[in-house]
Amino acid sequence: RAMGKAMGLVGLLLGLVLVPAVLVSTSLRHGAPRTEVGPAPAPADWELAAGAVPEDSLWPLPQWLRTSPRQLLLAPGRFQLVHSADSSARPDCGLLQDAFRRYYEYMFGHSRRRRWGRRPLAARADPELSELQVVIEAPDPGCDSYPHLGSSEAYHLTVTEPVAILKAYEVWGALRGLETFSQLVHEDDYGSFLVNESEINDFPRFAHRGILLDTSRHYLPLKSILTNLDAMAFNKFNVLHWHIVDDQSFPYQSIYFPELSDKGAYSCNLIYTPADVRLVIEYARLRGIRVIPEFDTPGHTQSWGKGQKDLLTPCYNGGQPTGSFGPVNPILNTTYDFMTKFFKEISSVFPDAYVHLGGDEVDFSCWKSNPEVKEFMKKQGFGTDYAKLESYYIQNILDIVSSYNKGQIIWQEVFDHEAQLKQDTVVQVWMANNYARELSRVTGAGFPAVLAAPWYLDYISYGQDWKKYYRVEPLDFSGSEEQKKLLIGGEACLWGEFVDATNLTPRLWPRASAVGERLWSSRNVTDLQDAYRRLTNHRCRML
Amino acid sequence: RAMGKAMGLVGLLLGLVLVPAVLVSTSLRHGAPRTEVGPAPAPADWELAAGAVPEDSLWPLPQWLRTSPRQLLLAPGRFQLVHSADSSARPDCGLLQDAFRRYYEYMFGHSRRRRWGRRPLAARADPELSELQVVIEAPDPGCDSYPHLGSSEAYHLTVTEPVAILKAYEVWGALRGLETFSQLVHEDDYGSFLVNESEINDFPRFAHRGILLDTSRHYLPLKSILTNLDAMAFNKFNVLHWHIVDDQSFPYQSIYFPELSDKGAYSCNLIYTPADVRLVIEYARLRGIRVIPEFDTPGHTQSWGKGQKDLLTPCYNGGQPTGSFGPVNPILNTTYDFMTKFFKEISSVFPDAYVHLGGDEVDFSCWKSNPEVKEFMKKQGFGTDYAKLESYYIQNILDIVSSYNKGQIIWQEVFDHEAQLKQDTVVQVWMANNYARELSRVTGAGFPAVLAAPWYLDYISYGQDWKKYYRVEPLDFSGSEEQKKLLIGGEACLWGEFVDATNLTPRLWPRASAVGERLWSSRNVTDLQDAYRRLTNHRCRML
Repeated sequence: RAMGKAMGLVGLLLGLVLVPAVLVSTSLRHGAPRTEVGPAPAPADWELAAGAVPEDSLWPLPQWLRTSPRQLLLAPGRFQLVHSADSSARPDCGLLQDAFRRYYEYMFGHSRRRRWGRRPLAARADPELSELQVVIEAPDPGCDSYPHLGSSEAYHLTVTEPVAILKAYEVWGALRGLETFSQLVHEDDYGSFLVNESEINDFPRFAHRGILLDTSRHYLPLKSILTNLDAMAFNKFNVLHWHIVDDQSFPYQSIYFPELSDKGAYSCNLIYTPADVRLVIEYARLRGIRVIPEFDTPGHTQSWGKGQKDLLTPCYNGGQPTGSFGPVNPILNTTYDFMTKFFKEISSVFPDAYVHLGGDEVDFSCWKSNPEVKEFMKKQGFGTDYAKLESYYIQNILDIVSSYNKGQIIWQEVFDHEAQLKQDTVVQVWMANNYARELSRVTGAGFPAVLAAPWYLDYISYGQDWKKYYRVEPLDFSGSEEQKKLLIGGEACLWGEFVDATNLTPRLWPRASAVGERLWSSRNVTDLQDAYRRLTNHRCRML
Repeated sequence: RAMGKAMGLVGLLLGLVLVPAVLVSTSLRHGAPRTEVGPAPAPADWELAAGAVPEDSLWPLPQWLRTSPRQLLLAPGRFQLVHSADSSARPDCGLLQDAFRRYYEYMFGHSRRRRWGRRPLAARADPELSELQVVIEAPDPGCDSYPHLGSSEAYHLTVTEPVAILKAYEVWGALRGLETFSQLVHEDDYGSFLVNESEINDFPRFAHRGILLDTSRHYLPLKSILTNLDAMAFNKFNVLHWHIVDDQSFPYQSIYFPELSDKGAYSCNLIYTPADVRLVIEYARLRGIRVIPEFDTPGHTQSWGKGQKDLLTPCYNGGQPTGSFGPVNPILNTTYDFMTKFFKEISSVFPDAYVHLGGDEVDFSCWKSNPEVKEFMKKQGFGTDYAKLESYYIQNILDIVSSYNKGQIIWQEVFDHEAQLKQDTVVQVWMANNYARELSRVTGAGFPAVLAAPWYLDYISYGQDWKKYYRVEPLDFSGSEEQKKLLIGGEACLWGEFVDATNLTPRLWPRASAVGERLWSSRNVTDLQDAYRRLTNHRCRML
């Protein structure tokens, strides 16, 4: 309501009549993690959109937006993205400078700039938008920082003659607003660039909006990962969950333990060097995307065993070692010595405040076969409950990683098997079977949760399965308001058994866009027909 | 058996000991359309392959092959693909010259040639293969002709020091043999190019081995079509079934009726000009691939109606035209005037002896609603059997196309609805429900059949669905030997509802490779494990 009044004021001051304005969506905040902007006005004052309107290609749909039919021209040779004089960010803010360059090119194209830069357009009678001024309001704009779970991604955008204003508390909100602004700019039949006068007030519903890429089942070239980060930015995702190693291969080149990739990678050139990893992290940072590495143990570790002697449990059959190996050996001090050093490296290489420690699908059969493990079980008083041994191992790892001041994410089994978790440990729910019940349990126990179960995008089927992902309502689980707030977000997971550089992009996009809107937009944005129209345009723009 | 003896002779003459030779596959011909080479020898004399052998990457598996562990070196700077002095093809045979250049590059790479072309390799003690001599045995090699249903694709390849000999009756067999030879050449760890001494006697099991591409649901850029033709050649497919127009769009730019694409294409640049069509046909010809265009009528023609007035049937509701249209209007003389002229153009633009006339999924509801159609039905004595009207239309079209000396292919409904078909009309079986029974009926009625039903590759599912396509045995239907011979082949169909340039290649390949081997190789080539190993290598090579 305050916003509506402010809008009216702006309109009056600029002498604009914004009526008939078009309101596409309103929302009362629901489960949104944090907002610096005021509550959205009630929808009653405005009429709903009908027919083709500029917001027909906005994705994900902003929390609150109003557009006018009045169009402003943009002259690529004159239009500028600039820092406002009111902004705490200055031209030495590399992150925003890079974003200005990037979004300029998305809007006008690379070749066009050169062509039009040389000869100014003839003056036209139509009103012109001359620049987009970006205002960062926080004392420290965060240009050199990394995004984190608590970062503000809210922004407020007004597009009116002669300048558009994009306000955000931090640079992260500015990045989201630049994406939205670029989605508003469109070309008419004559190739002129236009934007409708608009006001947008936007913020994410959930703070953790991730894509899981798996670089172990198939190696993904750096270019695929970077392209995917671009697509993530187009869809306002903010977490790359990098499932970097697994049974099949160990492409992470460790500084302390180079043998892990020397022997565990598919080949000596199918690895991620420290420079590669830095590049991914920086490319992601510039797009407001966190990189959370997953080093899944004690299961899913066959490839670790090749370069690290005695790390895995030797399996036995009839009292004899079979020569094959099971999960990480949880009974040896050398295991924890190794993990201490290894995760020290990981904690320093990856700047994010969280590390994903895996813990899923631990097969107990090898542990059960091993006489020394059985002896250890007896000594520890675990009886025959191997879930206790698993928890014993995981708790050791959690302690190690905690000592490096890193938060932890783990797959749901670690919680299910009743390991003692730190209160801020994030539990990722992946099992499709009754995931709502699991969300109730996890949040009921007071743990933050991330939902992945309904969004395993490696599973494919014929037709428009994006609708299935879109229809998911993450908060449809029983629990208190406090519990609902503990669901911090979700992830679309693209496991790599049948994915490599040849099919990653068309398999993931725009299917993951459905998840992107579900995690960003208001809960009441559920109209499939409207989504289809916007998604079609969004795909076109992404291409 | 004659072949086995000949091989022994060759071995003796060249002083080679080919034992222990490795026999990968033998076959008694079964349903193979035609063969110029003698029957394959019995397998008893040879041992089956075990472990990694060069033929581990052959795809589709040749009908008969024998390899020796003896390896020959190829020096990219010296090795040549040449016409044998015994060949009826001379250096002015553009098709083979182009194939020589192409396969040289597949084997050695473009950049390598330049590097090595400048400095001859130092002499090595290992035996060297200096050239592949190609012998075309037919008096007219067919360099400037088009492949057709009766073309010979058989070839005989011997790889022995110092020259390899590739014999084929026509150039089409030479193309298949060049593909096989290139698959035999591999690199060792030091980057040396090697080929094992081998003998291969090969021919296709089925004469019609097709890929259906649909350029109406989504437009496919020329580059996608050409890339697909390359992939088809790698898998010895020989028919591009070009489902060029449909309800959704009419991208074919007609010479006589340019309005069809002016108004029926998605946009004025999403069309195939006459030059584009010629390019596709020539690119395909150079790879031994026929281009069979499909102009599907009377259904699936919504896009035709936009540029051709009165072509479609006006639908009625309550005695009034609704403004929407149904199938082609079968009761007007103008319809047949149009079709006569249109198919005259098609018959001249597309050199193949066959045109696909569609005829599937005709919805009778619009015809039933139209009072003039009802009147016509009465006059013709069709009662209320609209299948008779459909057949009336189709028979007119068949007569028109016959008058241009073109053979016809139609979808199964045309046969099911008892149209009077010419005896050489090919019936394409597409309905998944009990397609074996349909094959029995079609061939029982004496018509040649093409099987598509089990190979709709636009339908996707999670995991290795290639196995499902691979397991299909086309001749598993009840019928006489004569009936079995009437099954001339099959097609993998990639309908375009969810396919465009972004995902065509990874969606179709290597899944279609499974169909390729089923249609080329011997009936007894069914070992999934062996196929998996070869297909993995084949995919790698295709990439």
